Amino acid sequence: MSKTEFDALKEEIRAFAQARDWEQFHTPKNLAMAITGEAGELAAEFQWLTAQQSVLEALSGERLEAISLEIADIQIYLLRLADVLRVDLPTVVRKKLEINESRF
Amino acid sequence: MSKTEFDALKEEIRAFAQARDWEQFHTPKNLAMAITGEAGELAAEFQWLTAQQSVLEALSGERLEAISLEIADIQIYLLRLADVLRVDLPTVVRKKLEINESRF
Amino acid sequence: MSKTEFDALKEEIRAFAQARDWEQFHTPKNLAMAITGEAGELAAEFQWLTAQQSVLEALSGERLEAISLEIADIQIYLLRLADVLRVDLPTVVRKKLEINESRF
Amino acid sequence: MSKTEFDALKEEIRAFAQARDWEQFHTPKNLAMAITGEAGELAAEFQWLTAQQSVLEALSGERLEAISLEIADIQIYLLRLADVLRVDLPTVVRKKLEINESRF
Repeated sequence: MSKTEFDALKEEIRAFAQARDWEQFHTPKNLAMAITGEAGELAAEFQWLTAQQSVLEALSGERLEAISLEIADIQIYLLRLADVLRVDLPTVVRKKLEINESRF
Repeated sequence: MSKTEFDALKEEIRAFAQARDWEQFHTPKNLAMAITGEAGELAAEFQWLTAQQSVLEALSGERLEAISLEIADIQIYLLRLADVLRVDLPTVVRKKLEINESRF
Repeated sequence: MSKTEFDALKEEIRAFAQARDWEQFHTPKNLAMAITGEAGELAAEFQWLTAQQSVLEALSGERLEAISLEIADIQIYLLRLADVLRVDLPTVVRKKLEINESRF
Repeated sequence: MSKTEFDALKEEIRAFAQARDWEQFHTPKNLAMAITGEAGELAAEFQWLTAQQSVLEALSGERLEAISLEIADIQIYLLRLADVLRVDLPTVVRKKLEINESRF
């Protein structure tokens, strides 16, 4: 089976961290904390918007760009956390969807 | 080009939401808020652990399972948000990594 | 000057932690993480509500009770963090309001 | 009974919002979202610090100042949310402590 995009990105992000000697900071605890920080920045983009103002058609190009980069930050740390915990993201997403299927 | 795993998951999650008539709730604002909620649950798993207790080798199987499902929850809402905002996750991740390259 | 309610609560919360030998867990880092966890739970109460459904008059008594206890959790950890960092909450609140006065 | 510091601050923050015509933005939902944003900023101050580096004695004056202002931001939005939901903070804090007493 060919490598998924998830694995490819995971490796690029790992290489980025290794090149800067940042692996020492990337404990699961610290990465979880970094995710809350980035999630907070994403929330800040939306906090004073109405639901209507938050949809794609209503967002300015500039704000959509800012939001995209916040989404990227969360994805980067999530991939990094999945990497250090040896969690396969597509696998756990499908597992969680199955649990949700039986619940809702 | 073949569909990436990101796109495949995005479509599965969209179908899940459509089947339950949940699209009405999935405004970008609400999804950003849901991400902070799930990030908070992930943080709660780690909050009283030391850095040493948070690493893969030190986590119990039960806790690692719980953490994996919290990671999945964040990934699910992030894919859903990327879907409603027409953001391609691998593209914005690589864009952000390039910005970080020039910064650090 | 008489003790403020902030100081009184701070001392009650400190006594609660001491009685359970929890001070060892209450590093500023861990308390900051606990605040994000509780803030996430508060967000979860509101995430699928419209702005209109979130106002006092529209909330059920049960949900208002749940929200009040989430607010309390954040306040408890904020008082605990202020305690271990020797930060006087009314003082820093007024300082921040002054900064905001000059900004907005 | 004389007014508590909580009530005094609540009124100062309300006046600040009224003077800027910001009350329209201060729905409970938006305020809960703002709290997660500020909690994320507080987390960001601590995310790469070890537990030992996060204690009062180890923090630089500059960082302690930055942390104090993040704490203030959370307290301000928490007081504002308590105000719009007519929640008395000392009352709910003591109620939650009692619940915790019976639990732990």
